[in-house]
Order: sequence, then C-alpha cells, then structure tokens
Amino acid sequence: MNIYENNLYQVPANFEALTPLKFMQHAAMVYPNKLAIVHGEIRRTWAQTYARCRQLAHRLKIHGVGIGDTVAVLSPNLPEHFEVHFGVPMAGAVLNSINTRLDARTVAFILQHAEAKILITEREFSGVVKEALALLNNPDLLVIDIVDPTFDSGEYLGSISYDDFIAQGDENFIWSKPTNEWNAISLNYTSGTTGDPKGVVYHHRGAYLNAISNVMSWGMQSHAVYLWTLPMFHCNGWCFPWSIAAIAGVNVCLRHVRGEAILTVIEREKVEYLCGAPMVFNIINDTSDVLKERIKHPVKAMVAGAPPPPAIIQKVEAMGFTITHTYGLTETYGPSVVCAWQEDWQEHPADHKAKLKARQGVPVVFQDDLMVADPITMQPVAKDGQTLGEIFMRGNVVMKGYLKNPKTTNEAFEGGWFHSGDIAVWHEDSYIEIKDRSKDVIISGGENISSIELEEILFRHPSIQDAAVVAKPDEKWGEVPCAFIKLKTDAVLSAEEVIEFCRANTARFKVPKHVIFIDIPRTPTGKVQKFILREWAKNDS
Amino acid sequence: MNIYENNLYQVPANFEALTPLKFMQHAAMVYPNKLAIVHGEIRRTWAQTYARCRQLAHRLKIHGVGIGDTVAVLSPNLPEHFEVHFGVPMAGAVLNSINTRLDARTVAFILQHAEAKILITEREFSGVVKEALALLNNPDLLVIDIVDPTFDSGEYLGSISYDDFIAQGDENFIWSKPTNEWNAISLNYTSGTTGDPKGVVYHHRGAYLNAISNVMSWGMQSHAVYLWTLPMFHCNGWCFPWSIAAIAGVNVCLRHVRGEAILTVIEREKVEYLCGAPMVFNIINDTSDVLKERIKHPVKAMVAGAPPPPAIIQKVEAMGFTITHTYGLTETYGPSVVCAWQEDWQEHPADHKAKLKARQGVPVVFQDDLMVADPITMQPVAKDGQTLGEIFMRGNVVMKGYLKNPKTTNEAFEGGWFHSGDIAVWHEDSYIEIKDRSKDVIISGGENISSIELEEILFRHPSIQDAAVVAKPDEKWGEVPCAFIKLKTDAVLSAEEVIEFCRANTARFKVPKHVIFIDIPRTPTGKVQKFILREWAKNDS
Repeated sequence: MNIYENNLYQVPANFEALTPLKFMQHAAMVYPNKLAIVHGEIRRTWAQTYARCRQLAHRLKIHGVGIGDTVAVLSPNLPEHFEVHFGVPMAGAVLNSINTRLDARTVAFILQHAEAKILITEREFSGVVKEALALLNNPDLLVIDIVDPTFDSGEYLGSISYDDFIAQGDENFIWSKPTNEWNAISLNYTSGTTGDPKGVVYHHRGAYLNAISNVMSWGMQSHAVYLWTLPMFHCNGWCFPWSIAAIAGVNVCLRHVRGEAILTVIEREKVEYLCGAPMVFNIINDTSDVLKERIKHPVKAMVAGAPPPPAIIQKVEAMGFTITHTYGLTETYGPSVVCAWQEDWQEHPADHKAKLKARQGVPVVFQDDLMVADPITMQPVAKDGQTLGEIFMRGNVVMKGYLKNPKTTNEAFEGGWFHSGDIAVWHEDSYIEIKDRSKDVIISGGENISSIELEEILFRHPSIQDAAVVAKPDEKWGEVPCAFIKLKTDAVLSAEEVIEFCRANTARFKVPKHVIFIDIPRTPTGKVQKFILREWAKNDS
Repeated sequence: MNIYENNLYQVPANFEALTPLKFMQHAAMVYPNKLAIVHGEIRRTWAQTYARCRQLAHRLKIHGVGIGDTVAVLSPNLPEHFEVHFGVPMAGAVLNSINTRLDARTVAFILQHAEAKILITEREFSGVVKEALALLNNPDLLVIDIVDPTFDSGEYLGSISYDDFIAQGDENFIWSKPTNEWNAISLNYTSGTTGDPKGVVYHHRGAYLNAISNVMSWGMQSHAVYLWTLPMFHCNGWCFPWSIAAIAGVNVCLRHVRGEAILTVIEREKVEYLCGAPMVFNIINDTSDVLKERIKHPVKAMVAGAPPPPAIIQKVEAMGFTITHTYGLTETYGPSVVCAWQEDWQEHPADHKAKLKARQGVPVVFQDDLMVADPITMQPVAKDGQTLGEIFMRGNVVMKGYLKNPKTTNEAFEGGWFHSGDIAVWHEDSYIEIKDRSKDVIISGGENISSIELEEILFRHPSIQDAAVVAKPDEKWGEVPCAFIKLKTDAVLSAEEVIEFCRANTARFKVPKHVIFIDIPRTPTGKVQKFILREWAKNDS
C-alpha cells in the first residue's frame, strides 16, 4: 500500500453518490423564484416545482413505493411528466416513461415486464391505455390521472388525480439520496422493430454525467429557456429534464409538435434551445415564413434520433437556427456522440457545411471511447471515410443493462464495448458517419450498399419530399436497392427519372432497381419503419 | 435483491473511472490543431501538448516512477507547469506543485514529507531551491530544469533539462487510466501560518468534477482563452488546468503578475477569463487607463483566495470586467462556493451590487452541501445574516485527506462534514458571508468582532490603500481591535481620523482602539499574514 492509499478513506464528508436529483434541490435553494416550468397559464418556480416533487416522493412512500419499484408514466410533455423525473427517484423508485404512440398490447407488455406498481397517465391516450389495462388485468396497479385544463378530450381512467395524490404528500419531505450511484433511476423500453421491446436501465451516475454532458455539448448558460419538442419518453427526453435542472433553466411544455404552435411559443417565451428528430425540423421548416421572421433571438437546435439528411440541416440553418447534430441510442442515454463544430468549417459553402454537420461526429467529453470496428474481430477500421464497420461505445454513459435479460445484456457488452448495431465509416478527422443500421445494409452482388447514402441523394432532388431505401430480394444479385418516395405536392416525377438522377450521383451498382411512390411510415421519433418497407418491397412485383 | 440489482453489473463497456486526464486526450483527438498554450513565441496545439505529456509520462515510467510516487514541481506559470498536470498522473504518479514563495526550510520539509522522487524546477527560484536541496541531502532525488528562453536569471541546478528528459519518451505512449477514481492525482501543501504545512491529497474523481464545476460556474464555452494570473501551485491553479482541457481552451502563460503585462496580453490574445486573489485585481486596477481602454472585448474575472472588499469588486467592474466571486480552501479543490449571480441584483446601485457580490455565496452544483453551524453542536445557525457560525462543507469536491496525518484528517472530517475553520453568517437567501477565520475573530468584552467587517469599512476610505485588523490583548476588554493601515501615495490621515471614520460606520464597541501605519505583510496568494500582525500588535505600546 502506497502513502496515498493509507488512511485516506471515503467518508460522508468527502464522498457522495452522484445523482441528478441534487440539481433540482440546488436550483430550488439558489434560485427559488426563478421560472422552472411554463404550460399554458401555469408558470411555476423552482421552489414550487421542487415542493411538488417532494410531495410526490413522500406520497409514493406512503403508498409503499420505494427502492427497486417501478412507477410508469404515459403522458405528453406536461409539467407532471417533468416532475416525475425527480419525484419518483426521490422516493427511491424507478421511472418508466412509456412511448405514447405504442399499441395497447405493447403497453400492457411493458407494464407487466417492468412490474409497475403505479401508472400515471393522461386522457389523450385513454383509448390505448384502457385497452392495455384490460389486457394487463392487474387490480393492484394504481392508476393516476394527470388533469390538464388546456386539453379536453378522452376519458379519465384512474382512481385519483395527480394533484389530489400529491396533495397528501409533505412538501418538506426529506428524501433520501441513493445509497449507491449505480442504483437504477429510470427504465426506457426500446422500440424494437421486431420482438418484444427491451427495457434499458439507467443509473444515477450515468444520468448525472449525461445531464452535464448535454449542458457542455451545447455550452448552455444558467436559466436557458428550453422548449419540449422532444418527447420526454424518448431516453428521458435524452435526459434534458436533469440538464435543465442543473442550469436552473426554463422548461416550456408542448403537447403536440405542430409548426405554428412551436414558432409562436419560441417567440413568446424567447426559447433558446430545442431538440428533435429530423422530422420535427421538417415540420418547423414547412411553417409560414411570417411566423419564422418574427423570431429575432438566437435559437439552437439539437437534432438526433435519425441521421438528418444534409438538405434538412441546410434548410433549418437558413431559417437562422444553429444546429448541433448528435447521435446515440437508448442504450447510451441518448446523445453520446456529437458532431463537434470546427471553426474552420465556417469557410465552406452552406451545402458542404451541412454535409460535414450531417456526420455523427466524435464522442462527447463524458463518454469514454468510441470506435468503428469489424463486428467480428472488433479491430478498428481504417480512418479512411470508406471502410464500413460497426459503431462501438464504452464509458459511463452506457446503460446499466437490459432489465431481466442477462443474455442480451451480455451480448450487447461483449468484448468490453457496447455493440450499437449501427454501421458507419470513420473519417480521417476521427468523425464517424453512419451508413446504416447493420440490418439495413443492402448486400448486392457481394457489395455493401448504404441505404442512407442513397436516401441522401434522393433528398437532394427538388421534387422529393420524403425518401427511404431498403433491400429487395433478387434472384440474380441476392438483394437490390428499392426506393420509396413521397413527392412534394403537385410535383411530377417518374421512376425512370429517379433512377436516372441516382445514376448521375452514385456508382452504377448502387442505383435502385425499383422505385415505389408512397407515404413513408415513420415511428413517433422520426425513424423510418424499414421493416414495413421491406415487406412492401418483397411483395412488390 | 430487487429486479434492478439483478444481473446488471459494472463492466468495462459501461463503467470507467472518472479522470480529468481524459479531457486532454479528447481535446487532442477532436481539436488537434487548436491552440492549447501560448508563452512568448511558443504556440502549441492540443495535439502537440498531448504528445509532450505522453512523452513525459513514458519517460517517468522508464525512470521507475509510477503509482503512488510523488513528482514535485516548483515553477512559474509556464507550459511545462501545465503539462505536468497531465503527464505526471498519466504515469500513475502524484503531482506536488510547490508554492514558489516558500522559504528553503519549508521546501525541504515538503520534498521530504511528500517523498518526492523527482523535482522539476526553474531557475528563477534557484536560490531557495539550492538551499532546500542542501538541507534535504537526498542524492536519489532527480532534479530537472525547465529551460525558458524568455527568462535569463538564476542557476540551473538539475542533471537534465525538461525538454531533454521528455525527448526520450514516446509521444504515442499508451498511458493507463487510473484503476480507481479514488486514486490520488495531486498533493497541495497548505501554507499553514503556524507549524508544518499539511499535505492535502486530491483524487481523480474530485479533480474531474471540480474541473467541470469551474466550467459550469462560469458558463465557459469551447476554446475560451484563459490567462494564468493565478499561480498553478495554488490548489492546482484552483484546478483550471483540467478545466481548460475539458473545453479545449487556450492557456496563456504569465511569469509575473504585473499590471502592464496583464493588460497587454489580455488585448493581444483576446483573453476572456482570468482568476486571482483580490490583490491581483488591485494591481490591474492601478495600471494605466490607456491600456485598460484598449480592451474592447468582454473579460470575466474570478476572484477568490481572500474575501474581496466590495470596493475592489466595484472598481474592477467599473473597468468593464465581470467579476465572479468564489470561495473555497485548499481542502475543497479551491472554489466550491460561488456567489451565484441573481438577475434582480442588476437593479441595485453599483455599491450595493458590489456588497452582494462580496458575499461568498452558495455551494457550487457539484458540491453536496454547505452549512454555517455551531462548531461544537454542529447545529445550523439561523439564516438571519447575524449569527456567527463555522462554515462546513461536504461532498465530492472535498479532499481525500491529509497525507500521512490520520489524526488531523479525522478531526477535519468529524461529524460527517469538513470543518473549514472560517466563520460566517448565513443570509436569508442561503448565501453565506465570511466574517473571519475562527482564529481571527476579536473577542472584546465578551462580544465577537469581525475583523473583516472592520477591514471593509477601512477600504471604503479614499486615502487608504491597504488595511487589516487583528486582536490586541487588552487588560480591561480581553482583546481590542488594532488596525494596520497603508495609505495611498501622498495621502495624509491621522490615527484619530481613522478611528473617527470607523465610529461613523459601525458600532462603538467594534471601533479599533489602536491604529498603526505600515506595509501589510501578505502571503503570495494575497492573504494577510495576521500572525505577524498579532505579534506586532501585542508588542505595540
């Protein structure tokens, strides 16, 4: 034992478990009267919000909910959805925020698999929830209704309202810090395209570090105003509830992602930050120029959830928003890779800049490491911008594992790295660029074809509104690319013209052999549902 | 065991020890060609700086220096001093940066107590170092000379130059991350006013969190330009070497704290941030207005190390600098309390604003907790701005402990809190305000008198340049306040006028009974050496 290990112990004075719950306690102490949350007529301070979270925590405790118990929530981006990110873990419990677009069967599966003791829900989704509860048939599940005065549709399903529930809790409740920073804080089910969803477990340490990572990646200042265009159910809103508390910022709630509402609230509340999948920015971009021009202050947008076509980045920046492109997975607390801005990119023309920004980038400061490597040997590929490999990450912003699924957890962590399943190239400047999900790569005549590369080409065509490319089985080539295309209103374009356009922009073997004009099915987070397209492609003759 | 503890382990994919060394690796990967350090003609990038740190780490390893070994440095703020903050711990060793103003006996004590294997030194201090080495008489100690082309005075004492030493190391050396984030990273001796200095040990976890805490407290952006007015030997430059790496910023070196040099370099390098004790800002303030007026960009200054009189804050802000006042001790990695800015303070007149800013403030987000409490019962005092108590802190930015001193470590951590030894009041808004070091409180006729309160009054007098108040033994009252005063050049002021001025500004029992005009002895970090003044006061008749 060396001199630095002798008699120098962890004691209560010099060691505490990292937890993002501290951020709210701190905000409420230092900035009690600063605005924390805005929703319609509701404007609550950090002191008020903290009091409500402590009431919730205390009330959960009275109800018998504690360490290792699951509290589920299925709600739009309302103040209550923000509060549960603190109140639930302040009771020692684990928050499971459920995707509001799921079907009843999947919701029932999640409630059952997570062993939820409580479901906090909202009547916009009462149709699906009612059906899920019937399937679940668990009389012990306490159902609580959020009551939102700004919305009047759907049915109350619970035995008590959220406000009545927390009213019985003590707003000065002394909540317990986690005994261990490795304790679970939340549970997020991945929207697997096949099979049952997997429950990704986050811990307090990772949630704390990721929250700060978001603040650093964006250079966010104290009291920044953040608009909730990103669903809180998606990787805990990529963990921004905890980031906004860390800077005592302002949460501006938003029930529906609609262009007019977004632009109006950005102007009114002087929103400085918002996040979303590429389609969110498509929606904003398609809204009236009059509303856009009213926004005079700087707005920063973080895009993730699906690779953004450079054309979309360029359009949004033309609106005056500054885009930061990040990449990650549910398993990495959302964004753990960022396309860090290089000052000398400023010199490039807008289209080239957008192309550089469309790359996924480099690990955030808080992640340990990232590599693009051969999925079998796990040897890193050359940084040549050409060689395809799988993306691997490791570090503190990787999940604790999949709930009740040790086999899949072990597979995901095999060899000391998290296996992302995404296929990328590694550029000379250490930036990665996603070329596909491993299962989306098209293998044609032994050659790998990136569906994303073809999609980027299609998005450059002035008549094309939306596009996606998948593999279609082919007797001769094994697979061939099949393009799905939605045209802009009133645009006219033939399949032959699409093929001709691709031919002019890429290698011959990559050109789609089939073109189908159709509305493209996307998930709530903007991801193309390629498993559906693959079915359509297979059945198309 | 609950479902969240089952089969969800820490594995290499999802857990890594926190260490600030990662910040440099990250900066060098993402921003290899960005400027990292400036000193005279030297301008090195992050890639170059990282290469030099890896060379140093490798060369130390070849020399047999590794985990638990101490490498000492005694140097001005030069690039090499920055590099050792990374290169030494990359070898697994512990950095001991020694105060350059210490006497030879104390330097020898430190080298011996720390069991230093290597001393990296610089010839500006060769007089003291030579004498210390003679006292130490350790032929095994390897002495390395930093060679600075911009400075030509003093003697080389070592057997090799720093550049020649690291030239034998591999710039691609694969350094090992700490096996445990609780491992020591650095050792800083406190300049105790009596007795031998105590060795405060920092660990990787605390250094990591404190580095980010600095970035957050100041809202620092990527590539910020930082001027080294604060000595790197003081709490590892309050840990800013690691902060600047975290944001891939620019370190602007500075050998001597001189007003003209500071203002010139602020203008030339577009310096945005600097730190220092109050006296640093006094020096800047006393420099020619012509130089000040040339600075057109915003500059943020962090002041700590001694309670800044509101008058100094007001003067520096009048220069256009924005001041952030922080407070901490060597034992808390430097600043762990910050006078967080409240937007509504803006409405107050400048003098009241300065008074609010002169309070020490609230714990930083990364510290667990802070209280002002009775030193015996450890019960928090009322938040009334009146009741005196001792400041206690706890959390991750509290030291690992004192090296080879378990008794003092245990005393410092007694009751689960770090005992600061500073006396403060707690205001209603949760901001603390230091009133004294516990040993500096003057107890007169059973009443506590804060020496700092009296000093603040004296600093408001237009003829007074510097002031300090200590207790003088008194037969009748036990103790009475004795004021030491340095007048401004050409100013004339009598002891009676000083007493009259105090009488007009405070309670009668607090008014100094004695006034002595003299140059006030301060430590290198700007702290008044009150033990000297107490001697003088005692002997003054």
